[in-house]
Amino acid sequence: MGARAHRHMETVAAMRPLRTVIIGAGNVASHIVPALTKAAVIRPVAVWSRTLANAEALTGKIDAPTATADIKTLPDNAELYLVSTADEMTRRIPDLMPPSNAIWAHTSGSVPAETFRHITPRFGVFYPLQTLSRGVETDMDNVPIFIEGSDPDTTGILMKLAKAISSKVYEADSQLRLKMHIAAVFACNFTNHLWTIADRILHREAGLDLSVLEPLLKETLRKATTIGPQQSQTGPAIRGDKAVMEKHCSLLPEGERELYQLLSNSILNERNKL
Amino acid sequence: MGARAHRHMETVAAMRPLRTVIIGAGNVASHIVPALTKAAVIRPVAVWSRTLANAEALTGKIDAPTATADIKTLPDNAELYLVSTADEMTRRIPDLMPPSNAIWAHTSGSVPAETFRHITPRFGVFYPLQTLSRGVETDMDNVPIFIEGSDPDTTGILMKLAKAISSKVYEADSQLRLKMHIAAVFACNFTNHLWTIADRILHREAGLDLSVLEPLLKETLRKATTIGPQQSQTGPAIRGDKAVMEKHCSLLPEGERELYQLLSNSILNERNKL
Repeated sequence: MGARAHRHMETVAAMRPLRTVIIGAGNVASHIVPALTKAAVIRPVAVWSRTLANAEALTGKIDAPTATADIKTLPDNAELYLVSTADEMTRRIPDLMPPSNAIWAHTSGSVPAETFRHITPRFGVFYPLQTLSRGVETDMDNVPIFIEGSDPDTTGILMKLAKAISSKVYEADSQLRLKMHIAAVFACNFTNHLWTIADRILHREAGLDLSVLEPLLKETLRKATTIGPQQSQTGPAIRGDKAVMEKHCSLLPEGERELYQLLSNSILNERNKL
Repeated sequence: MGARAHRHMETVAAMRPLRTVIIGAGNVASHIVPALTKAAVIRPVAVWSRTLANAEALTGKIDAPTATADIKTLPDNAELYLVSTADEMTRRIPDLMPPSNAIWAHTSGSVPAETFRHITPRFGVFYPLQTLSRGVETDMDNVPIFIEGSDPDTTGILMKLAKAISSKVYEADSQLRLKMHIAAVFACNFTNHLWTIADRILHREAGLDLSVLEPLLKETLRKATTIGPQQSQTGPAIRGDKAVMEKHCSLLPEGERELYQLLSNSILNERNKL
């Protein structure tokens, strides 16, 4: 963080740390809660997790007084409730928690902000667009954070929190966040699955694994993010090389062949648009 | 290169530079020919390209005496003919060139080595598995090179050339090279196309572009290449979150929806195997 975190902190200097209850102690919470605490924009007073050990691991990191696995015992006088649980649990929160005048925000890309309307009039979303894994350090300053609030005041407070830890903060309503999430599913989840298939082919056919392709993968990503993915498309489909595509398909089992054909046709369509 | 190139060169110290004719002056040739020349394992005597300016650009880089756009004028007394043209041209080479006793090798992942059998008894393949772009520096030492030769002597010579510029050299017959190429199509060409789709969704729906996902893309690749892609799969499909998948599909135009469904089903199948 260092110099850049300092710059962000100046812009929120007027804000005193919000007394905050943390609900959830998983991958996302274990990154954003320590960052927000260090930036002195929140002061965690309690951490809940279904698994007490996870709650305790997080309170240990941030010096919060209370870790609990019993959601009914959480303080009701916090200013902010930050919910960072699996989507299914996030959706059930309104059935579990009493009405409140605090700000309630969750960190999910897929759950509407309105989910918390039955708890509080001041609700919002604090969605970091990154694949965060517990125990893997991530430079939060580079993680895009998407903010939504029920009203300008709530939005403003959540924006300040986000700006205290990241230099890439965007305001985004639930509809926009959903579209971002769809884009991320294509760009990350589906590409990762294609790497799984490539890894499987390399094992099956060559006794190798994905690591042999690592220089190629890095260079492909570098080109896509510098000159853009349209311009950096290579391979038999964009060349319209039907002989190679047919040969490849003839060697693949059905599931992989179906993916090969649909993706190649999609590239051919892209090519015909150029 | 430096220290590592020096180490490689010692292992091939016994070999004097082969008098070499370069056929093709494109992306691949403009990377491997200067590297091989610098490592003193080849001495280029002429460069052919359909486009004279490209041939001249390459001779300028390596101090070769002759650049030509007329393939009939190439010297017939070289020891090595290195063919690095588009696949279609590579396949036509046997119709264009006279019989020879030299080694003929091409750099294609998809063209069988046997293609050159009608020119010479000593043929082979020198296939660098990387997306090489003219004008973009690439650390050749990290580029995997796959070698095939018509006989042990030819294989040995091509292996020595490859080891002089890369520390990742593999022997691979045409069948194995084809399988590697299929894996690379999934891992690079298809993933790049998914980035194109994500970029299009971000433009269309959010006025953003792929760069907003760059931290996420880098982290996704880093995780896939460290813990493996199976272990790092995330997203609605691997969670079996049908509500999110249906919502996403309802918002996508037909072509994108079809890809979303097929890729999600493929991930679900993977999940059921776990």
